[in-house]
Amino acid sequence: MDDDDTLLEDLRRRIAASPFHAGFGISVEHAAAGDVRLGWEARADHRNLQGLVHGGILATLVDIAMGLAIRTIVGPSRRHVTIDLGVHYLRPARPGRLEAAGAVVRVGSQVGFAEGSVTDATGRLLVRASGTYSVTQERTDGATD
Amino acid sequence: MDDDDTLLEDLRRRIAASPFHAGFGISVEHAAAGDVRLGWEARADHRNLQGLVHGGILATLVDIAMGLAIRTIVGPSRRHVTIDLGVHYLRPARPGRLEAAGAVVRVGSQVGFAEGSVTDATGRLLVRASGTYSVTQERTDGATD
Amino acid sequence: MDDDDTLLEDLRRRIAASPFHAGFGISVEHAAAGDVRLGWEARADHRNLQGLVHGGILATLVDIAMGLAIRTIVGPSRRHVTIDLGVHYLRPARPGRLEAAGAVVRVGSQVGFAEGSVTDATGRLLVRASGTYSVTQERTDGATD
Amino acid sequence: MDDDDTLLEDLRRRIAASPFHAGFGISVEHAAAGDVRLGWEARADHRNLQGLVHGGILATLVDIAMGLAIRTIVGPSRRHVTIDLGVHYLRPARPGRLEAAGAVVRVGSQVGFAEGSVTDATGRLLVRASGTYSVTQERTDGATD
Repeated sequence: MDDDDTLLEDLRRRIAASPFHAGFGISVEHAAAGDVRLGWEARADHRNLQGLVHGGILATLVDIAMGLAIRTIVGPSRRHVTIDLGVHYLRPARPGRLEAAGAVVRVGSQVGFAEGSVTDATGRLLVRASGTYSVTQERTDGATD
Repeated sequence: MDDDDTLLEDLRRRIAASPFHAGFGISVEHAAAGDVRLGWEARADHRNLQGLVHGGILATLVDIAMGLAIRTIVGPSRRHVTIDLGVHYLRPARPGRLEAAGAVVRVGSQVGFAEGSVTDATGRLLVRASGTYSVTQERTDGATD
Repeated sequence: MDDDDTLLEDLRRRIAASPFHAGFGISVEHAAAGDVRLGWEARADHRNLQGLVHGGILATLVDIAMGLAIRTIVGPSRRHVTIDLGVHYLRPARPGRLEAAGAVVRVGSQVGFAEGSVTDATGRLLVRASGTYSVTQERTDGATD
Repeated sequence: MDDDDTLLEDLRRRIAASPFHAGFGISVEHAAAGDVRLGWEARADHRNLQGLVHGGILATLVDIAMGLAIRTIVGPSRRHVTIDLGVHYLRPARPGRLEAAGAVVRVGSQVGFAEGSVTDATGRLLVRASGTYSVTQERTDGATD
């Protein structure tokens, strides 16, 4: 059975190997089966005209957390693709330390469901989100449908 | 009545003044009342481990298009905040030229609704999205609720 | 190639054979490949405490329209199951004649996407919705997972 | 401070006074501030052609649970209207006893957020949902916009 450290190492390796994730600057702080927690620093250049962190950035952050949570369940022989992302913005986010959590609700034979949150350094809930994922056997021919 | 050029100028000025939007690198290609079209170049560093453009980036792009479409309707005395963003991923996106469209469905006294799309250079539909926005009178005290 | 009348007959037969649909009281007014339009009468007993048609009823109506639109594309050998339903309520609905439209956005090998609307007798848009469907080969063993 | 019994009585009175809710046949089993649990019996005539409870019915059930949860927070002087309903279908539902839960995530000055679930008699999670609500001061002029 997978333990936390194996999953944590696997997720960190994946993030380092992905150009987008590496550039985005997240750190994986916790990983268990179906459960992931990330740390991320919102910088001044993530602010919109109102001085708040842009909603697209928060959507990206929580999508990464949920996708990695799905990742801990599907195992190496299957891949997952986001088919649906829903994000509710509860409170404005300001630059500074944020935390994102992703939790698997269910992974079936073809479809996976996860939920996620973003909180600020004081623990205030800023975002709640849900994601639906298509889960397929890894293809060797590179086709994507 | 606003004409296209006035709206186009206003949106371009807003984008230039927002640290996040300026860094993201979009261009406003069309703007009419309730209707906005953006151009954006997905680069190699937007790819995930599978070589596809990360879904969070596409969510950001279509959220910007929808928010700017709402912007063309609410006028200078009101501000809008995203309360809900829903994104459906229809096909994988690869690095290259993308186009995002935002269209207002309705703006009421307190809530606005918009829909959006992302297409690739060949016109294939990659993303469909919807957004809900809280529309309020601009505050002068800087409070955000 | 399927023509309208064949699809129309197929959808009407399905509705008559489904206990829920038959009781709900919809009529299929138009059907083409990927495109369905339904008529439905909201009655006094569909009102909530505020005298408006309950949102769950409108969600049901637009889900039926979208599901039938998917049905026109998947053909007899595949079945579809709703995995995600998103409904935006633009304006309140009152008892009387309503119309619901469903349109397919894309049907892939495993997942289908549709969008839908509900309008009142004067053509005012009351609801916009999106649905995601899992599309699978019909099983003969009765299993659902 | 409101206690459970006062809230429970208020919700039961509201349900009895609403034509739609009374006909739908739910019972309020638990109510605390921000937290509601309902019981409901899915009957044979709620089945679709595949013998499963129609998704629109489950959307209605969870929307009622979330709306009542919002109701426990907004108090008598404010009314709430659903602006957005998102439903994820995790597993098929068969006729029999179902339970729906609604929980408030946040109620701000203008917008409220809730989440909900539907489970079957064995405790299996069938549906997860989220709702966004416009919260306004009760109007005395009967206007809805």
